[in-house]
Amino acid sequence: MVNVGILGATGMVGQRFIQLLAEHPKFEITALTASKRSAGKRYEDAVTWHLDTKIPDVVKDTLVVDTDPNEVKDVDIVFSALPSDTAALVEPKFAQSCIVASNASAMRMEPDVPLVIPEVNPEHLDLIEIQQKNRGWDGFIVTNPNCSTIALTITLKPLYDQFNIKRVYVSTMQAVSGAGYNGVPSMAIVDNLVPFIGEEEDKMESETLQLLGDIDEGVVTPASFGVSASCHRVSVLDGHTEAVFIEFEDKFEVDDVKKSFSKFQGLPQKLGLFSAPQKPIVIREEDDRPQPRMDRNEDKGMAVVVGRVRKDPVFDKNLKYILVGHNTIRGAAGASILNAELINEIM
Amino acid sequence: MVNVGILGATGMVGQRFIQLLAEHPKFEITALTASKRSAGKRYEDAVTWHLDTKIPDVVKDTLVVDTDPNEVKDVDIVFSALPSDTAALVEPKFAQSCIVASNASAMRMEPDVPLVIPEVNPEHLDLIEIQQKNRGWDGFIVTNPNCSTIALTITLKPLYDQFNIKRVYVSTMQAVSGAGYNGVPSMAIVDNLVPFIGEEEDKMESETLQLLGDIDEGVVTPASFGVSASCHRVSVLDGHTEAVFIEFEDKFEVDDVKKSFSKFQGLPQKLGLFSAPQKPIVIREEDDRPQPRMDRNEDKGMAVVVGRVRKDPVFDKNLKYILVGHNTIRGAAGASILNAELINEIM
Amino acid sequence: MVNVGILGATGMVGQRFIQLLAEHPKFEITALTASKRSAGKRYEDAVTWHLDTKIPDVVKDTLVVDTDPNEVKDVDIVFSALPSDTAALVEPKFAQSCIVASNASAMRMEPDVPLVIPEVNPEHLDLIEIQQKNRGWDGFIVTNPNCSTIALTITLKPLYDQFNIKRVYVSTMQAVSGAGYNGVPSMAIVDNLVPFIGEEEDKMESETLQLLGDIDEGVVTPASFGVSASCHRVSVLDGHTEAVFIEFEDKFEVDDVKKSFSKFQGLPQKLGLFSAPQKPIVIREEDDRPQPRMDRNEDKGMAVVVGRVRKDPVFDKNLKYILVGHNTIRGAAGASILNAELINEIM
Amino acid sequence: MVNVGILGATGMVGQRFIQLLAEHPKFEITALTASKRSAGKRYEDAVTWHLDTKIPDVVKDTLVVDTDPNEVKDVDIVFSALPSDTAALVEPKFAQSCIVASNASAMRMEPDVPLVIPEVNPEHLDLIEIQQKNRGWDGFIVTNPNCSTIALTITLKPLYDQFNIKRVYVSTMQAVSGAGYNGVPSMAIVDNLVPFIGEEEDKMESETLQLLGDIDEGVVTPASFGVSASCHRVSVLDGHTEAVFIEFEDKFEVDDVKKSFSKFQGLPQKLGLFSAPQKPIVIREEDDRPQPRMDRNEDKGMAVVVGRVRKDPVFDKNLKYILVGHNTIRGAAGASILNAELINEIM
Repeated sequence: MVNVGILGATGMVGQRFIQLLAEHPKFEITALTASKRSAGKRYEDAVTWHLDTKIPDVVKDTLVVDTDPNEVKDVDIVFSALPSDTAALVEPKFAQSCIVASNASAMRMEPDVPLVIPEVNPEHLDLIEIQQKNRGWDGFIVTNPNCSTIALTITLKPLYDQFNIKRVYVSTMQAVSGAGYNGVPSMAIVDNLVPFIGEEEDKMESETLQLLGDIDEGVVTPASFGVSASCHRVSVLDGHTEAVFIEFEDKFEVDDVKKSFSKFQGLPQKLGLFSAPQKPIVIREEDDRPQPRMDRNEDKGMAVVVGRVRKDPVFDKNLKYILVGHNTIRGAAGASILNAELINEIM
Repeated sequence: MVNVGILGATGMVGQRFIQLLAEHPKFEITALTASKRSAGKRYEDAVTWHLDTKIPDVVKDTLVVDTDPNEVKDVDIVFSALPSDTAALVEPKFAQSCIVASNASAMRMEPDVPLVIPEVNPEHLDLIEIQQKNRGWDGFIVTNPNCSTIALTITLKPLYDQFNIKRVYVSTMQAVSGAGYNGVPSMAIVDNLVPFIGEEEDKMESETLQLLGDIDEGVVTPASFGVSASCHRVSVLDGHTEAVFIEFEDKFEVDDVKKSFSKFQGLPQKLGLFSAPQKPIVIREEDDRPQPRMDRNEDKGMAVVVGRVRKDPVFDKNLKYILVGHNTIRGAAGASILNAELINEIM
Repeated sequence: MVNVGILGATGMVGQRFIQLLAEHPKFEITALTASKRSAGKRYEDAVTWHLDTKIPDVVKDTLVVDTDPNEVKDVDIVFSALPSDTAALVEPKFAQSCIVASNASAMRMEPDVPLVIPEVNPEHLDLIEIQQKNRGWDGFIVTNPNCSTIALTITLKPLYDQFNIKRVYVSTMQAVSGAGYNGVPSMAIVDNLVPFIGEEEDKMESETLQLLGDIDEGVVTPASFGVSASCHRVSVLDGHTEAVFIEFEDKFEVDDVKKSFSKFQGLPQKLGLFSAPQKPIVIREEDDRPQPRMDRNEDKGMAVVVGRVRKDPVFDKNLKYILVGHNTIRGAAGASILNAELINEIM
Repeated sequence: MVNVGILGATGMVGQRFIQLLAEHPKFEITALTASKRSAGKRYEDAVTWHLDTKIPDVVKDTLVVDTDPNEVKDVDIVFSALPSDTAALVEPKFAQSCIVASNASAMRMEPDVPLVIPEVNPEHLDLIEIQQKNRGWDGFIVTNPNCSTIALTITLKPLYDQFNIKRVYVSTMQAVSGAGYNGVPSMAIVDNLVPFIGEEEDKMESETLQLLGDIDEGVVTPASFGVSASCHRVSVLDGHTEAVFIEFEDKFEVDDVKKSFSKFQGLPQKLGLFSAPQKPIVIREEDDRPQPRMDRNEDKGMAVVVGRVRKDPVFDKNLKYILVGHNTIRGAAGASILNAELINEIM
């Protein structure tokens, strides 16, 4: 078993890490960190548990420690659910000695830090060697993208490989859990929506291209098409929905797109990684699917569900579809875990 | 006073007609129709009133009649809140003798039936003469577009006049009231959204261009750019929100767009029509506005509120913005009423 | 394996029956009925599946038949998820030849039809013999109470056995699923609640006492205290919450009440029935629990979760607590199944 | 015009004060206070406005000052929307020189501070003289009760005057606005409810009796029946709903109760105070009313709407009914304003 720690273990994403790792066949949770306020408490006493499954027994009595490398001993991997500013300060310290699989945005766009979705760009892990050399670390940092970006990019990958994408427009309807437990007041979202999520559009517009970029001699060149996003918060607990419009360079057949989605498999599927969904993309044929409540848990929340895959009736080189991805599983904790599983398998 | 009737007076849009007309300075409600089941009852007994203002006293005792021209005497204008299939059968009969201001979709795309937003294309009313000649009617039908289309097209009009629009992508987040009181079960929308609304995308894609089309010798030639829509239902009671992406042919300044929105006025404003908003488009500068609950009632629900008006950081000839319009006021009952006010004023 | 059929298999409760029975160790689904409209279709084609788990493979291809005993062959037990009026007509016909475990209210208060919660009053099954004699049936009908009544009565049973209950006041906050998929329009419940559920208060007030009544020589004498209910619908998908106020005849200790709840076990627990929760009543000690979303799935939705168990600070012989029970599992499909498991085990 | 200040003017209740006072015929807003962070800013810049009407023009440019009597000059009355702990420190200072009409709970149960609902116990204002004497203040403090208590007590007052109340059980379903804008996270209330509101039950159980108590020689003796409350938060923006069960000492007729509700009038009605509702209690006869979204704004939010007024079918000396009151208008800002109007009129 690999010893793993969770940084920021009491927040929404931290809780998902615990839920997903509690019965992991290869990773064993041996350290949990949180803010100073929680340090020294049993996890069960430190956390306000918000998931509708129970706190796993294996962590109930674990003593929470401060998020400080000196407090976290004998772990091989730490999963980071830290806020961005804390992550920027702390993750590099952890990376001196262990693997940091981070869901934080702080280091994502650093040129020597791999931003990876295992089904999309596992080859970007080549940056690790450069990162270690550059920084003199024994460990390293690997990051996963923002929740909305992950679901979108998984669906773009097979299209990018087979068609010439010219432009992508994406409009999101994002779940409140993405903002953390206290992030969206009920006064803001009952009989309402909020058409703005700070920095989210920037992330979708840059991370997507980075993920689909080529790596050559240790340098990632982002994909050269453009992505334009408009991001909105709606009254849904979990599961981001995205309406995608793609301009291709050429005409295409919808059936080819569906085949492309349907047969898509990445390295995690080939390696049979524990958290890998059987199919990264699941297609629904009903008119009114995917829906977040109905589809977010597809394949334990690790598959992206697409529907309404259709040729644009107006622009004949355009494709439209809807996708749903679970924002705190496939889009956060599960993403970091899958990164770690891949690294653990191939490195 | 002009005597008016309301066809389909007990439904959601019918109730809005009553609410908006109850204290109208020029129109007096003298007839209410509904299905046979309700005929013969006092309006107060026939309706299950769903608005949060009260049933106006002036209609409480009005006897509801069947939706049949023989039952509706001495009215000059009828407002139609009928379902599309009934409208197709009944509106032509009413048009033989009176003005039909219809919110139904049945006749919207008929070549001799004006589809009008008074601020956008009042000149399309020229079709009336042709319609009457073609069909031998003493009255006529004038229609307003679908709720989502109205709000979008009001914002496109000043841009269309000043810039070269190449393409429009629009992603909607629509209120449940648009489907009628029983249209969206709570089981479908609590902790969920439904990424599909039957025929809505078609309507937005065709009606918008029709509205912005030129009329010449009695023929409307639709505008020649393209509109692609993706329509979704969210947990909001009233007020449709739309995320708009526009590709212009040329570069532009955001300030010019804002000025264009801000100074936009149409014929209803010039004529001072009773239901005309002071400004058809109101701009909000906050990051997180417009929001449906906060902005839907702007200027009695007749203004469209736009926000996040920004140049696309990715595509430099592209504009992005968010809009909110009240779907059952500006997008339905209020739209028909404004059409009738315009006709009453100029014809 | 016992062959079972489900009457009304396409509705909300029908779907729960299928979900719960699909992997049942002793019951095998061999017949599914629905209205004539669905008869002849494969189940997967006949149903609009609303649960967030998938349609079990074992029923996908089952041909749905009309709800008619002549159409349902070779079943030992039928589970009835029929509406009350249909149930009144059809269940007696099925009971001529097989066991009817019914969730419908039609026959609940018939003097020779047992109304049973297995943990509460299994001895009422003695009515079966009388029922068969009275009616000349080879089969029989056994019913479970209304969803709100079940959860309440499970918590009252250990108190009734140990304390002298004088009066019970109960105020419910019920989930929308209780009204069926289309039962509560979103327009009725977003930013709102509905303080009325037809006949629900009557059912709680009569069924509870019937369940706690003594059976003697084939006659059930209802318990003699009084229950007064006020029933309300709130914006929750699944899980009824009830605020309970109990007037005891005598003073009591809260700890004794908690012990009474905690150690409560019934015949299903003793017999180890498949669907029996380990503990029928689970106590939460947090200030703000139970909550429907967090607690409804306790022990696969078959346990009732109580919290805020407290002595009334005002009336010193009074107890107050909150309970949550899953209305379509413990309160409907799971209740009928547990009845059938008990009958299958002991008869 | 009377010069008034608002303490805590940027919060939810502070905003309601401004909304209600902006066009008041006798009170003119001349001072606004908030925390130090906001001091020195224009009100429009200091506030995040959450109401769906606009910030009144008259306060937009008012400079917000620190909540300190030295900063608030030349006001006759201050309305306090302060949190309880701040109120305890600051209100006595303001009371040295001006009238404090407080919505805070800090001073409510002080023996010489009147806790008043003008329709219920205006005679408790006699405590003012004692308060001033006791404390040596030129001004004084008058408080209104907690939001849930106000609505309940208004309905109890006519019953208390006419019938012998033995016990009251009340179960609330309270709106999220009662907890302040950030008080209830959406994660807590979407598809959920929270069956606990800190200290709310205590307040309802004590304040109600205080309000209905007799004052004699400067001492209020609380009413001698008992009130037992269970308080719950549901997904409603504004408007508290309460299910009330009353045990009377004697049998009664429902019609007498309804008459009692219907004809109830208090001093504010007799004096024609500006904010007084025409009828403090409005009865709805529909089965499913009152509902918070439909009824909270009755008579500008100042009336309490009751419905389902019925004799308990189980306990023949018992009454049951449902009430809805607007928690931030009748239950908070409007309550303080009505207190001030009464004082301004009679003292």
